[in-house]
Amino acid sequence: MKPRRFITLLLVLGTVGLLSPLSIHSVRSQTASGLALDGFTLRGSISQRSREEQFRAVPGADSAREHLRRLTAEPHVAGTKEDYATAVYVRDQIRTYGIPAELKEYDVLLPYPKQPSVVEIVGRRRERLSVKEAVVPEDSTSSSSKIIPLFNGYSPSGDVTAPVVYVNYGLPPDYEALKKLGVDVKGKIAIARYGNSFRGVKAKVAEENGAIGLIIYSDPSDDGYMQGDVYPIGPWRPESSAQRGSVQYLFQYPGDPLTPGKPSIPGVARLKIEEATDLTRIPVQPISYGDARRLLEPMRGPVRPRGFQGGLPFAYHVGGTDDLRVHLKVEMDYQIRKIWNVVARIEGNEGRDRWVIMGNHRDAWTFGAVDPNSGTTAMLEAARGFGQLLKNGWKPRRTILLCSWDGEEYGLIGSTEWAEEYADELREKGVAYLNMDAAVSGANFGASSVPSMWKLIRGATRDIRDPKTGKSVYQQWQDRSRESRPEAELTDAQTGSDVDIAEARIGALGSGSDYTPFLQHLGIPSLDMGFGGDYGVYHSAYDSFHWMTRFGDPTFAYHVAAAQLWGTVAMRLADAHGLPFDYVDYGAQIKEFFTESVKTARRRNLSAVFDGKGMSEAIENFAREAGRVEKSRQETVLEVERTRVEANDSYRRAEARLKLINDALLGTERALTDVRGLRGRPWYRHQIYAPGFYTGYAAQPLPDFRQALEDRSAGNAKEALDRIVAAMKRATEVLSKARD
Amino acid sequence: MKPRRFITLLLVLGTVGLLSPLSIHSVRSQTASGLALDGFTLRGSISQRSREEQFRAVPGADSAREHLRRLTAEPHVAGTKEDYATAVYVRDQIRTYGIPAELKEYDVLLPYPKQPSVVEIVGRRRERLSVKEAVVPEDSTSSSSKIIPLFNGYSPSGDVTAPVVYVNYGLPPDYEALKKLGVDVKGKIAIARYGNSFRGVKAKVAEENGAIGLIIYSDPSDDGYMQGDVYPIGPWRPESSAQRGSVQYLFQYPGDPLTPGKPSIPGVARLKIEEATDLTRIPVQPISYGDARRLLEPMRGPVRPRGFQGGLPFAYHVGGTDDLRVHLKVEMDYQIRKIWNVVARIEGNEGRDRWVIMGNHRDAWTFGAVDPNSGTTAMLEAARGFGQLLKNGWKPRRTILLCSWDGEEYGLIGSTEWAEEYADELREKGVAYLNMDAAVSGANFGASSVPSMWKLIRGATRDIRDPKTGKSVYQQWQDRSRESRPEAELTDAQTGSDVDIAEARIGALGSGSDYTPFLQHLGIPSLDMGFGGDYGVYHSAYDSFHWMTRFGDPTFAYHVAAAQLWGTVAMRLADAHGLPFDYVDYGAQIKEFFTESVKTARRRNLSAVFDGKGMSEAIENFAREAGRVEKSRQETVLEVERTRVEANDSYRRAEARLKLINDALLGTERALTDVRGLRGRPWYRHQIYAPGFYTGYAAQPLPDFRQALEDRSAGNAKEALDRIVAAMKRATEVLSKARD
Repeated sequence: MKPRRFITLLLVLGTVGLLSPLSIHSVRSQTASGLALDGFTLRGSISQRSREEQFRAVPGADSAREHLRRLTAEPHVAGTKEDYATAVYVRDQIRTYGIPAELKEYDVLLPYPKQPSVVEIVGRRRERLSVKEAVVPEDSTSSSSKIIPLFNGYSPSGDVTAPVVYVNYGLPPDYEALKKLGVDVKGKIAIARYGNSFRGVKAKVAEENGAIGLIIYSDPSDDGYMQGDVYPIGPWRPESSAQRGSVQYLFQYPGDPLTPGKPSIPGVARLKIEEATDLTRIPVQPISYGDARRLLEPMRGPVRPRGFQGGLPFAYHVGGTDDLRVHLKVEMDYQIRKIWNVVARIEGNEGRDRWVIMGNHRDAWTFGAVDPNSGTTAMLEAARGFGQLLKNGWKPRRTILLCSWDGEEYGLIGSTEWAEEYADELREKGVAYLNMDAAVSGANFGASSVPSMWKLIRGATRDIRDPKTGKSVYQQWQDRSRESRPEAELTDAQTGSDVDIAEARIGALGSGSDYTPFLQHLGIPSLDMGFGGDYGVYHSAYDSFHWMTRFGDPTFAYHVAAAQLWGTVAMRLADAHGLPFDYVDYGAQIKEFFTESVKTARRRNLSAVFDGKGMSEAIENFAREAGRVEKSRQETVLEVERTRVEANDSYRRAEARLKLINDALLGTERALTDVRGLRGRPWYRHQIYAPGFYTGYAAQPLPDFRQALEDRSAGNAKEALDRIVAAMKRATEVLSKARD
Repeated sequence: MKPRRFITLLLVLGTVGLLSPLSIHSVRSQTASGLALDGFTLRGSISQRSREEQFRAVPGADSAREHLRRLTAEPHVAGTKEDYATAVYVRDQIRTYGIPAELKEYDVLLPYPKQPSVVEIVGRRRERLSVKEAVVPEDSTSSSSKIIPLFNGYSPSGDVTAPVVYVNYGLPPDYEALKKLGVDVKGKIAIARYGNSFRGVKAKVAEENGAIGLIIYSDPSDDGYMQGDVYPIGPWRPESSAQRGSVQYLFQYPGDPLTPGKPSIPGVARLKIEEATDLTRIPVQPISYGDARRLLEPMRGPVRPRGFQGGLPFAYHVGGTDDLRVHLKVEMDYQIRKIWNVVARIEGNEGRDRWVIMGNHRDAWTFGAVDPNSGTTAMLEAARGFGQLLKNGWKPRRTILLCSWDGEEYGLIGSTEWAEEYADELREKGVAYLNMDAAVSGANFGASSVPSMWKLIRGATRDIRDPKTGKSVYQQWQDRSRESRPEAELTDAQTGSDVDIAEARIGALGSGSDYTPFLQHLGIPSLDMGFGGDYGVYHSAYDSFHWMTRFGDPTFAYHVAAAQLWGTVAMRLADAHGLPFDYVDYGAQIKEFFTESVKTARRRNLSAVFDGKGMSEAIENFAREAGRVEKSRQETVLEVERTRVEANDSYRRAEARLKLINDALLGTERALTDVRGLRGRPWYRHQIYAPGFYTGYAAQPLPDFRQALEDRSAGNAKEALDRIVAAMKRATEVLSKARD
């Protein structure tokens, strides 16, 4: 009750015009911790909060459980009839909530295994590895005959026999360490462990180093017994389990490999498979650590370099000798197959041409209880909540789209093809893209986003209850981040007092889920979030309903929290008068990225080759303009509120000014893209965020500039920074249009 | 040839008096990198260098190999007849080099196992662990019937049966983590892994937490297969190997537990065993990881907290439940037994009452090829070198003692009893104590010492050739330390240029070897050094001659280098005109220690309770006085040189001044001790260096002050710092006596 009374008082003061411009800031800072919502008038905040409460009362554990049970009843790999059945389920569920929803189909290149791969030790006698996940009696779905064999998506077919070299994580420094030992993988089969990067990177680096095949296994130190008890006793990966997954060169371009930059629809020309630049040419195969042990233990050659040792109980050797030869045979069936997105639409009121897009993929390597159908479940429960609001008469200011993507596992295919098909419209109308992939595998909230949405995310998490602790999701997130920091960081060495903990950190968007086409191809502000935990069954047959009920979210309370949070963020974006995007944070983040890069450049004697001063100025100008817009946005929202009742010229002027501001905020992210694309990968257009060539899932901020520094290329560094500066100037120019 | 011509020129200039005081510094800095030796006149430097070269030509690989073979032919635990035989061997060898040497006997409390300990799982049927190291066929000594069973020195006898709790490293934070899980060790048997501290600390903490027994095992992640190939394929600990070792409360006092502070000689009263405060009251037993696996794998209870997981191939649990009960029976035979030091003596010329002491222990848990007889071998080869010089007419300025200690493994007994017996004489005459324990287990040089000897150590390592690289030992030491640092630390972020790498770091002396009575009880400047490497057979039956020839030092070149280095340091201390002790470094180090402590104090809100300003002043005054003495020492050595030929009053005055300076330098370290001793452990008197109660081998600098901060005791912190300040003032006072 207390906070509400407080806000009412402010509202009264505000509406009778007693708030001078000078007091705006203090109102804001008082109400920020109270009930006012960023971008809403004070009156609007109150009705929005009431509507949000109605919304958040809808998602429920029982229906979430039922959605997940239905979605995970069978394996539903992209393009299969079981996958189609989930599309129909999602579409029909959303329709029952009173929201129009349609299937949207694409014909794309998808390989399935023709038959299980062969991995065998070739010696005096042949010893074949099982390459199969064991049945776990208490997890009934683990015995399903429809579980797809262990394979890597977009591995070519291949049949090779050669000595094996253990390449650790299979990244460039690993091959350098091997070179120092005099070990070469040329003409050999590499065996790498999963982790530290996207598996497609491992394939690319193996290929670059001349390997003729690649085996990837899950080391027990990464997600097996070294992390905790293994399934079904605990949530971690058991001995026979392996990680499926795509080895597409995602860092080149995602989507259908045959239609880069264009939608896979009738009439669009397709490349030949040989022409696709995002596919590896060597066979790649995942195996379990039970199988890997049989390869690694008999290996000879030098003892592994520092950092190569994993969790199997012997000293790893790098191999490469004739003592151990392996036969690897992968047979794939490459076909053009149909996939099915589901797109649902809640029409906006004043801003029907402004789209707030919620997205989650639906296809899974097996049952996908965590990845991705915990997210699908959250989307359905959020849709149910929206449906309830619609029945109560709600009409959002802006249009909300709910998208259930297909083919994400192969390479973000459903989202990419759709984004490519509607690219022009999306560039014009896209407000934000809100992603949830593996929404729930535990209780620990985490998020990545563009900096303009940091405050929005933090604000929303303050209003969602964390089921386990009863605190807010935000508080639990903060407490955890505090616990993980050493005493020395938490107290000021000069004063002995507690250090003000910075807000919980929100990461940078790299790749590995469906935000990539929206942010990095189109320049639409994006976020990705979810609740994580001890999750060792990723892309295995045990990512099942049973696993979820035993470990991930037995009560389904976090599925409910995910639905509440996702919907709340979407509603704030859809309903806010002034879009809650803060480009001051964005400027500060770019400055931090640049400072970090300059340090690298100095270490490499490259700091003289680029125009650092120009960049610093560009950042400063951007930040100044962003501050101006931010102030103007706050003021104009209040002005709208103050003048609304009169509905006179002042009101119309304020509304017009707010439209200008909103359009500028919308265009700013777009301006950070460059139509020429990044060096060597024109599909990626964003000048601030992209996955690195070698970082895999992780972002490499200021991508071309950083890459040039990595490559120690003075010319590239200069050109890259010039383009970034140009993007910053464009963005500043767009922001300046908010001035009237 | 070049450097020598350069120095000759300088010498000429120097002797004809052309060097003004102003040019002293430049001469010094030029010659420091050339041939001049700190504390020597230029002429003296040349003859010293020539003598050192003669010396260093003597130690040889063949004779080193032969010493080690003889010393390690049989297990020689302190007090056994095989131990006696090694004493006789060392004495007789040294005598053959023309150096007088004698045995020095003490009667001390030493326990041996009465019979092998019992560790068995008590369940439906009893399952007894082997508690025995396997025979390795290619290592002939590993089958010796004289190998002492696995036991921990100074474990009491005991017979207990209880559930087992896995306590990780068995240190206070581990028990705190267990408490958070609701797991109590009271009335239970703790099982800890070796590592991170001295095993006596593990026994003490287990006892404090109410455990009734302690089992300590060697986890494969610490020195087994996770580090590399295991013996006999590689140098690391194999499955059946365990680590013997003392669990004496070394941090209370070392030496014979029954005669703290006094020598164990006839006429000295002894405590009853129950009165000794450095002994644990619970049975302690070491086991192998092969045996530990049989205890750890079936354990129930919570999954281990973060940081508890070791290298065995399953998720560790903390246990503590009735699922697993263990019977531990330790039967010890406690007796007063004889041990034998060997003390050899090279009489000094002008300074026979100034003792430079080289020390190494000789007793071993089994064969002791690395620990300690690589050091014994180096001592014998150094003695052989000294013998050669003596034959050539050398007479060192100061007396050199070569001490072969007994009973170190049980608790630094031989050195402590000797230091206690000759305490007064040592306080008067002790110049420095130079320790080598495990002198060679590989090629990587490392050292710990008081800061006054840092320059001396670095200087000597510059003049010893590293056998493997052909560079100087110093260079190899530096290169290694450089390699282990990340790029970011090695280049200046502002300029991009290489950062001047600070000199290779020399550690602080904690405890765990024979320097402790000299430095921490008596205040004699001490160092400890050696060449380390991949060494997983510490205190096992495989610390054998065969291990050394396969892994540690197959060519014995590092034994030769150790002898050369040790002898060189001793000769420089014995022969220098002005003692090469630099208390400027010491002051800087104390300042660093204090700054670090103040940070901790501030974090704990304790910075107001002590006189930080007084300490800062005391450090400043000490540093200023140290600088003055250092300058005066340099000048006086040159003055002696300049006036020597005239042998007039100026010369006598210079010599007298140098004596004052040397005496002051000698007394400074002594002044840092406090006769009242440290809080709760009066035997430890040094105010700057002591092992911590929980740090084990590692030093806890400014010990009482740091401990008070750990304990959050304001009163203790104030008192401790007051005592440290008083010690600093005493030391400053002593230094000021160098002024004439």
